[in-house]
Amino acid sequence: MNPTLSQRAQKLTSSVIREILKITERPEVISFAGGLPSPDTFPVERVLAATQTILTTAPTPALQYGPTEGYLQLREWIAARHSTGSVRIDPADVLVTTGSQQALDLLGKTLIDSGSRVLVETPTYLGALQAFSLSEPTYVSVPSDEHGPQLEMLTREDLSGARFMYCLPNFQNPTGRRIPLARREQLAKIAVEAGLLVVEDDPYGALSYSGDALPTLKSMMPENVVYLGSFSKVLTPGLRVGYLIAPQALHRKLVQAKQAADLHTPSFTQRIVYECVKDGFLDTHIPTIRELYRQRCQVMLEAMQEHFPNGVSWNRPEGGMFIWVNLPTGMDSVELLQKAIAENVAFVPGAPFFANEPQRNTLRLSFVTVPPERIQRGIAALGALIERESVGLKV
Amino acid sequence: MNPTLSQRAQKLTSSVIREILKITERPEVISFAGGLPSPDTFPVERVLAATQTILTTAPTPALQYGPTEGYLQLREWIAARHSTGSVRIDPADVLVTTGSQQALDLLGKTLIDSGSRVLVETPTYLGALQAFSLSEPTYVSVPSDEHGPQLEMLTREDLSGARFMYCLPNFQNPTGRRIPLARREQLAKIAVEAGLLVVEDDPYGALSYSGDALPTLKSMMPENVVYLGSFSKVLTPGLRVGYLIAPQALHRKLVQAKQAADLHTPSFTQRIVYECVKDGFLDTHIPTIRELYRQRCQVMLEAMQEHFPNGVSWNRPEGGMFIWVNLPTGMDSVELLQKAIAENVAFVPGAPFFANEPQRNTLRLSFVTVPPERIQRGIAALGALIERESVGLKV
Repeated sequence: MNPTLSQRAQKLTSSVIREILKITERPEVISFAGGLPSPDTFPVERVLAATQTILTTAPTPALQYGPTEGYLQLREWIAARHSTGSVRIDPADVLVTTGSQQALDLLGKTLIDSGSRVLVETPTYLGALQAFSLSEPTYVSVPSDEHGPQLEMLTREDLSGARFMYCLPNFQNPTGRRIPLARREQLAKIAVEAGLLVVEDDPYGALSYSGDALPTLKSMMPENVVYLGSFSKVLTPGLRVGYLIAPQALHRKLVQAKQAADLHTPSFTQRIVYECVKDGFLDTHIPTIRELYRQRCQVMLEAMQEHFPNGVSWNRPEGGMFIWVNLPTGMDSVELLQKAIAENVAFVPGAPFFANEPQRNTLRLSFVTVPPERIQRGIAALGALIERESVGLKV
Repeated sequence: MNPTLSQRAQKLTSSVIREILKITERPEVISFAGGLPSPDTFPVERVLAATQTILTTAPTPALQYGPTEGYLQLREWIAARHSTGSVRIDPADVLVTTGSQQALDLLGKTLIDSGSRVLVETPTYLGALQAFSLSEPTYVSVPSDEHGPQLEMLTREDLSGARFMYCLPNFQNPTGRRIPLARREQLAKIAVEAGLLVVEDDPYGALSYSGDALPTLKSMMPENVVYLGSFSKVLTPGLRVGYLIAPQALHRKLVQAKQAADLHTPSFTQRIVYECVKDGFLDTHIPTIRELYRQRCQVMLEAMQEHFPNGVSWNRPEGGMFIWVNLPTGMDSVELLQKAIAENVAFVPGAPFFANEPQRNTLRLSFVTVPPERIQRGIAALGALIERESVGLKV
């Protein structure tokens, strides 16, 4: 029999990234396609010690059903971590989610009706588009430059009629760019004036190579922001523990939506995270991740400088896991990928990261899981390929 | 600011059960309200050994992102466990979910449009109604008796126009009743003839007190059934590992919906479950759960026989965790609950389990987490209360 699918299911397609990842699992492929953190950074011993502590001291609550809102001690830790001199986060505003991705799903469900306007950066995170699209919004692509979205280019009506704006201020996936302080202040001013809700997605915020941090949008306009955080990039992603911080009226609805989605995030993984982080572990651990990623980013940037032909441009990230590349006009990165895979190099084409008009000559490179020697070899091969293709363009 | 909520979010309400559970956490309350398995059955030593094995032999894949479909070895184990002499389950049809609740969410997303007809039992599992309701279906309450739903009372048109029927054949939550073999065969015949998709939710199937098992609907009509299974009631719920088995065309869409929902179920908890079950552990473990629950069920039934007044009726479950009670006509179990809590006894009112017309004189009792002496004391108090309230009714 053929079941009748919902209209939203008929429109569903698989993530291009995850399909490519399947191809690039062959060991001979040098893959810059992944969004995976480096397993070299996983604190295995600490996770092992945490599981032993939990299962030998208080196993029952770790293995039993738990509250939808999440493990209270973890919520308190998260609230304390995000409280600043000027803004105190209440643990009651925290909701632990099954990875940050689930927060996107819950926000789509609670905030988007079919046809609702949702503002997104240009480009933006593909996984957010996938999650929101199930509720069939109308996306407004906010004009964006190397400093982030340019809200001042939208009319007051565009802004106030939108359900929310989705924004990744720090080392955005896919571009790696960070929004500078002045632009953040401008965004906050415009959002508050327009009564615009902002979803601030911040999985990479801790990964600034220099160790500095800019104020979050949440700290600038707490009532206007739902903040999304994650332990995937600073601890391990396989535990699937993320969180959101939302104003109470919305928080209540998000909790109800989560109850229907998976009752609660696993009690055990929440406690593992709490055991790992409660004593300040991240303060010594995160700098080791930053340093590893900074070095690999540097290796890739130097290799790009050496091997990429004229007509190709890219940014120099201050943190995070990604570099964004603009190919010569007219070159399609999806076509390029087919040829690159034949030469055992992979990346992610940029087009799927655009909500509306894709810029097909863009691509995303990740450097964090690839050893330096392979970064150099892969970038050399990719540079040579782009050079050959550029010649083709000019003919 | 007040964010504009989606229409579905405006209709969202919290689970009555979970709100009550919060109240009944006071230790002096004898709570028959929970749907929690007994922590006495949690195999703590085995979970501890599993975590040590995983983190000392192959930590990276357990802590890294993984495939949306789930951990392949666990999917193979699930497929083998559900393959019978006549029906072989392909691991490709298995999708690991973040608890069975997530399967309900994914099915709602992929199969229900606003106004789509969905057939449900009378009563049915509240958590399913919560999950499906986000997609705003029109529920058709299938007339049901002590042997389960009576599909023959619906017209052919009712059946073929429905997106699916949702059904819990074994020891249903909330009623505890099991659908006998003859009724299963009749359901399968009608569903196949009508081209009706059936969602078979089976978290309690292994908990038959006598150890017998009836054939699943999946085994009777594999192409018409999405089967939902769970490790929550036979291992531990705090790991949040469930699964579904679906025909390929639908499976693909469910995987895409899951990708947007949480990328994948935690790699670590999936591996813990696999380590725990791979060597046949459940074959010795499940009989100990059955025996515990059988004994407690027996204690509760005897106490009800002794203390409940005339005019109250209930079933005698052959397995599972619940007894369903019919109070005298005119008595409202929500009002009764307020008075019961004042006497430190709790249960779940039956009304929220009905998709359409609630039978307000019903309630659900769970016996599995309460020691025998407290079962007797709680049932005595509840019986006395019902008796007093019955007198009030007659006045």
